[in-house]
Amino acid sequence: MPAGQYGHVLRPSRYAERVNDDRAAIHAVLDEALVCHVGLVVAGRPHVIPTLHVRVRDSLYIHGSTAARLLVSARPAPLPLCVTVSLLDGLVLARSAFHHSLNYRSVVIHGDARLVDTVEEKTQVLAALVDRVGVGRSQQCRPPTSRELAATAVLALSLDDESTDVALKRRTGPPSDDEADLTLDYWTGVVPVRLTAGTPQPACDIPLPGGLAPSLT
Amino acid sequence: MPAGQYGHVLRPSRYAERVNDDRAAIHAVLDEALVCHVGLVVAGRPHVIPTLHVRVRDSLYIHGSTAARLLVSARPAPLPLCVTVSLLDGLVLARSAFHHSLNYRSVVIHGDARLVDTVEEKTQVLAALVDRVGVGRSQQCRPPTSRELAATAVLALSLDDESTDVALKRRTGPPSDDEADLTLDYWTGVVPVRLTAGTPQPACDIPLPGGLAPSLT
Repeated sequence: MPAGQYGHVLRPSRYAERVNDDRAAIHAVLDEALVCHVGLVVAGRPHVIPTLHVRVRDSLYIHGSTAARLLVSARPAPLPLCVTVSLLDGLVLARSAFHHSLNYRSVVIHGDARLVDTVEEKTQVLAALVDRVGVGRSQQCRPPTSRELAATAVLALSLDDESTDVALKRRTGPPSDDEADLTLDYWTGVVPVRLTAGTPQPACDIPLPGGLAPSLT
Repeated sequence: MPAGQYGHVLRPSRYAERVNDDRAAIHAVLDEALVCHVGLVVAGRPHVIPTLHVRVRDSLYIHGSTAARLLVSARPAPLPLCVTVSLLDGLVLARSAFHHSLNYRSVVIHGDARLVDTVEEKTQVLAALVDRVGVGRSQQCRPPTSRELAATAVLALSLDDESTDVALKRRTGPPSDDEADLTLDYWTGVVPVRLTAGTPQPACDIPLPGGLAPSLT
């Protein structure tokens, strides 16, 4: 699992310069993963916070508990963030220890986040966040009150801003052993992995509506 | 999904002061998750890199491609890192948009990493990393050559070092709606999620040995 084994690495580049296929691949990763990891610098030290995110058009939005406390301190200046979204796709078992690896897709975004401060944008983003756990879920629950909206901090990272860098990386496919190892008698191949939903655990006695978490089905 | 809804949050504290139950819970998260997110500061900006990790006794070890390039620059001084390991356990669907949440377990480690420089420790750690994808896998493949060992960078973060902070957080259990919302007629409950293994895809014609990735079975 050392340096250099990745089957396909796309170099960081401006989001705006990317061709459509590439943007679609970036969106697919952002839209499938439920959790991102937000990196920020506090008093010179790195902090990494896991939190839910949502992409709306060409912006990535985050909000959240611990995140909020650290992140809100950014106001009014934009806050330098690194948001990493990664999906584990498989365990890659090579004939050599050295070429063991993971299949994955990841998007790393470097940019300056702004605090969302209009009720309209905040309302739209919070509905989109709720819809991440199920298609149309924001219409199947009580909407936020203005007090709840005021209590919630939302940050936006524009993907197509001049100062934003977006890097897509992935490894796919079978192990890539050295020629000399190909005759060794060890099992080799890929074990695919994915996040799956279990049986819902209701806390009520009405039936579960359909359309939950599309990336889990 | 705003601030303050987490059911159970353990405050950061010294690893050495934790009771056994707590250490066991920390180890369980580190040992179940296959991927961690490593945060570091480069030229004043945050970077977050996903990579495989392994815990050996009271140290967390990482190595990896992109990671290596950034991290090796640390030598000879210890490198300030934040390593976050998070497991998504469930989608929490409340009657109100505001109380939607995620069930999760996460461990956040703030510490100064050292570069592993003895062949013995490096060999042991790389075997442990390979064993993460399957029990005993390091014995079922060609071990690293000295050239491969030299080409691989490994970093260690001591969990019980005086200067290391370890925080365990988790949310478990059903949604926690406001009293006033309990009579609303929306489905509410938890949809459990977990990482699962699919059918192995062999790249050879010998049978797959048992014991793959215990956290996936």
